[in-house]
Amino acid sequence: MSTVVNIKQYMRELGEQARKASRMISAADTATKNQALLAIAEALNVQREHLLSANAKDMAAGKSNGLDAALLERLLLDDARIDGMIEGLQQVAALPDPCGEISDLKYRPSGIQVGKMRVPLGVIGIIYESRPNVTIDAASLCLKSGNAAILRGGSEAVNANQAIAACVREGLRAAGLPESVVQVLQTTDRDAVGELITMSEYVDVIVPRGGKSLIERISSNATVPVIKHLDGICHVYIDDEADLEKAHAIALNAKTHRYGVCNAMETLLVAESVAATVLPRLIDAYQSVGVELRGCERTRALNSTLAVATSQDWSTEYLAPILSIKIVSGLDEAIDHINEYSSQHTESIVSENITKARRFMALVDSSSVIVNASTRFADGFEYGLGAEIGISTDKIHARGPVGLEGLTSQKWVVFGDGHIRQ
Amino acid sequence: MSTVVNIKQYMRELGEQARKASRMISAADTATKNQALLAIAEALNVQREHLLSANAKDMAAGKSNGLDAALLERLLLDDARIDGMIEGLQQVAALPDPCGEISDLKYRPSGIQVGKMRVPLGVIGIIYESRPNVTIDAASLCLKSGNAAILRGGSEAVNANQAIAACVREGLRAAGLPESVVQVLQTTDRDAVGELITMSEYVDVIVPRGGKSLIERISSNATVPVIKHLDGICHVYIDDEADLEKAHAIALNAKTHRYGVCNAMETLLVAESVAATVLPRLIDAYQSVGVELRGCERTRALNSTLAVATSQDWSTEYLAPILSIKIVSGLDEAIDHINEYSSQHTESIVSENITKARRFMALVDSSSVIVNASTRFADGFEYGLGAEIGISTDKIHARGPVGLEGLTSQKWVVFGDGHIRQ
Repeated sequence: MSTVVNIKQYMRELGEQARKASRMISAADTATKNQALLAIAEALNVQREHLLSANAKDMAAGKSNGLDAALLERLLLDDARIDGMIEGLQQVAALPDPCGEISDLKYRPSGIQVGKMRVPLGVIGIIYESRPNVTIDAASLCLKSGNAAILRGGSEAVNANQAIAACVREGLRAAGLPESVVQVLQTTDRDAVGELITMSEYVDVIVPRGGKSLIERISSNATVPVIKHLDGICHVYIDDEADLEKAHAIALNAKTHRYGVCNAMETLLVAESVAATVLPRLIDAYQSVGVELRGCERTRALNSTLAVATSQDWSTEYLAPILSIKIVSGLDEAIDHINEYSSQHTESIVSENITKARRFMALVDSSSVIVNASTRFADGFEYGLGAEIGISTDKIHARGPVGLEGLTSQKWVVFGDGHIRQ
Repeated sequence: MSTVVNIKQYMRELGEQARKASRMISAADTATKNQALLAIAEALNVQREHLLSANAKDMAAGKSNGLDAALLERLLLDDARIDGMIEGLQQVAALPDPCGEISDLKYRPSGIQVGKMRVPLGVIGIIYESRPNVTIDAASLCLKSGNAAILRGGSEAVNANQAIAACVREGLRAAGLPESVVQVLQTTDRDAVGELITMSEYVDVIVPRGGKSLIERISSNATVPVIKHLDGICHVYIDDEADLEKAHAIALNAKTHRYGVCNAMETLLVAESVAATVLPRLIDAYQSVGVELRGCERTRALNSTLAVATSQDWSTEYLAPILSIKIVSGLDEAIDHINEYSSQHTESIVSENITKARRFMALVDSSSVIVNASTRFADGFEYGLGAEIGISTDKIHARGPVGLEGLTSQKWVVFGDGHIRQ
């Protein structure tokens, strides 16, 4: 890792190169971009030993710096994880190229024909934490969508990230693309992040990937637009007209399929008329797999062993085997509760009544609204995006899982035959 | 106009009410929204005298404050302009409702069905200058797209804006909608703008409408996302394979149809091999209608009466009968010039060669790219949006003319039959 003396100047040079490279990658054809992706995969495969030894340095430094076990686990590279990066590159190469797609081409009364063409955003800055494989995820999605990328990984993964960056450059070179299409910062100085998120002449959008505090810090200081994902306080509502077998399966799956993920349910809402039927069996099921339950007053009247859910619970993303449960009078109270406490990530209704399902779908203001299925489906792979760079809880530009399309924009295209405005 | 004592508190109360109102307007059906639009039109018609006398106060104040003639012209309300507002409301009522549209609903291998639903953004803050009719444009587009609006008009139009605001409230009431769906600030204190553009818990997007300096000031201080329109430095490129009759008509129309508009051409680029054929006739035509011409060295070699175009000219939006002309070697130099100097608004190529047209369309990074037609077509009405709230020169969220769809977002919708994640 070279020493960077003047951060501001270093970042501006990086930005200028990224801007130039973005013009070239936006003009690259699909075959060239795919060739680069597969050449990067090949380089990772050839450089396996080098990647593992770079990662070993990071792991050793992490241990001596007292990183906790979870962080070290995320930091680790092994053969399986390198295989995962290689497969990811191959999958992105196999996805359709979003760039250049023309849609809605229609004739207007004036005689011109107007449509939209999907185009890259330009330069994308991605700021992430410990996992080195994000370097490949981010590089591959930006490259395929015709964007240049400036990547800033976590300081604890610096050796692995630089080794991966070398493979990315090798792949770009092999396809005849400029190496500066994907630039990984040569410094972990925090000031570099401050520059990256404010140099709007060189960077078109920032995607932070990491904990809520990282994302909040970046959002509040950025002048470049940020595609952000804050927390996932997801709800399942079991309606009084729910099929209770489906309700049981969905409520169990949404909480217990995986605990530490943003699309896991954190609060279960149950219509009062079915609560006494559906809850006792669900409570047993949760408790038998070790989920800690916190209930509203009425839930605790059904089972007094539950802890009391405070108003704090309704606003908490546990990311853990903890669930809060609230009994509501019916659909409208459920919708009100969700629109007040949810993080607008993903909410699900279980109901056989189509009018209620339609109402829930229309009124719940979240990035994914689900009828009769688990909240765990809310991700880019399950939605068919092929890959995702994150899940946006914003409304502007991209909502929910962000794949290749979320890294593009649409420009207007007009065809005439010499038409002038009257 | 009431006196607002505590701006911060006043704005936060406004924001809270807008957030509540946005939930109600997002749930309103199409008929109710159209009823409100038509009732506002009716109220404007009934209150004609009141609007004119309110405007007369603004005009008198403007004159005594020494506003220039152009500003006074924009400030003026008369019967024709009131008719224009009424027609605008009727047209927006006639547009299809963008909300709730579900698209791309597809089955996934897991059995769930995934699609997207178009939904309002929430609360939109609009900051504009002297023209009071913008109050109605903004209110009607926000209302139809299911959004709540907070409007901040120019201080010089305060009496007319308050009179129009009363009509909007009356229309909302008549349709059974809360008056706070559209709130017009009761203060012209500048601090109110500072609050509006930073209270991101209450406001989802800011649309500034006005001069470049207003927009730059807002963009650099806002923490709420801004849909912005900076300048329009638009180009026409006459290719060496252009039909020279079409080229003549388009180049003339793009400059002279209207001068003070953002989609007027400011720089004409001409391929060297046709310059001597096409330029003398065009130069005559421009000069005969009083357009001041500034040329590159090679253009001046054809006609030495032209002023010298400096590098400053390539970056200037004249908004006036002035045109800069540059002779280029061909397509690629034209594209390079455009991507360096244009404001990414609208560019047009005149060429009969489809390969060159396709290359121009792919590589020019502007919000509208046009083949064989005038740049003057780049607006919401010509594109069939029905109405526009502005033209975005951003890439994120909305590019080019922004109509009802630009005031919406898409959420994911998922249908299952009890599906859980395996």
